[in-house]
Amino acid sequence: MTRRPVLEFWFDFASTYAYLSAMRIEPLAEAAGVDVRYRPFLLGPIFQAQGWNTSPFNLYPAKGRYMWRDVAREAERRGLPFRRPDPFPQNGLAATRVALSGADKPWCGAFVRAVFHAEFGEGRSIEEPSAVAGLAGSVGLDPDQTMKAASAEPNKMRLRAITEEARTKGVFGAPTFFAEDGEMFWGDDRLERALAWAAGEDA
Amino acid sequence: MTRRPVLEFWFDFASTYAYLSAMRIEPLAEAAGVDVRYRPFLLGPIFQAQGWNTSPFNLYPAKGRYMWRDVAREAERRGLPFRRPDPFPQNGLAATRVALSGADKPWCGAFVRAVFHAEFGEGRSIEEPSAVAGLAGSVGLDPDQTMKAASAEPNKMRLRAITEEARTKGVFGAPTFFAEDGEMFWGDDRLERALAWAAGEDA
Repeated sequence: MTRRPVLEFWFDFASTYAYLSAMRIEPLAEAAGVDVRYRPFLLGPIFQAQGWNTSPFNLYPAKGRYMWRDVAREAERRGLPFRRPDPFPQNGLAATRVALSGADKPWCGAFVRAVFHAEFGEGRSIEEPSAVAGLAGSVGLDPDQTMKAASAEPNKMRLRAITEEARTKGVFGAPTFFAEDGEMFWGDDRLERALAWAAGEDA
Repeated sequence: MTRRPVLEFWFDFASTYAYLSAMRIEPLAEAAGVDVRYRPFLLGPIFQAQGWNTSPFNLYPAKGRYMWRDVAREAERRGLPFRRPDPFPQNGLAATRVALSGADKPWCGAFVRAVFHAEFGEGRSIEEPSAVAGLAGSVGLDPDQTMKAASAEPNKMRLRAITEEARTKGVFGAPTFFAEDGEMFWGDDRLERALAWAAGEDA
């Protein structure tokens, strides 16, 4: 058996368009014969480096108004629930640490979908560690062990390193997809093409 | 015969993604049974109002690098030529005035495509009035009469008014599409959905 090609899915839990991608990437990747590699990171430091202290959707109100309408419209078209969390953006640090601690584990996709569903499907807060522990429990993880592993120093350092890696690779938003040859695709609208590229159809 | 639905196509000649849309909107609209209404305007004043003195693709280098790669990749996939003009963004004032003066004329689409093709298909300058006059001539217009009508005071005022209308309607980038019920779609990636909405398929 030859190894299946891999597509990296870089995302921040505050991203509405990453929600749209997270809820469909696994079946699409399966159909394309591609494996998904979850790459959770924090957009905050990248935004701060370009002078933004919050989401560009808050800084630029016209763009923000459109984004909420566009995501609601797309979610409806796809049969996905959508509800805006308050505040936006949510601080996803605790959830991101858990996702990163499980990035190579079979449960990662289920946890990522549980977080995004709570945040944007139900408009619930994902900020408190207790909320994140509850979501970990909801996908069959041991909440205490999971939170402990997530907040262990090596995992915190790993999150700082992956966020720096995102910046170095030219990531400026989420979702961003990388094929193994380094080809980069930005945005939920490019997910199909990223998978086709990873599968070698466009190479 | 019932009147066909209309989709407004708001664009700035400096927009690479508006180039992608301009080169395909008419056959797609025809297939959808929708009429295209050309709405040329200037993004510059809208960008300036949010503190940008040039294209965001220049202000945010990581985003800019990705954009050039993405547009080149999309153009290749569609069999469209693509070449980056220097400088970018081009000053499209003269071309925009001509397009606006013909916004309700049968030649508007051909002129818009001629400008975009010169600018992004061949990487030529569209800044000088002589270049714009040449492009007008290339689609069968009288260059002198066209340039004179374009720079007449009522047409200049109309350009200021439509640019202000864009801002009022919440336009923050190009291309932007509006259906007759006011539904807004931003980006070449939303062209198909904008046409479906205008045609009543998603209403």
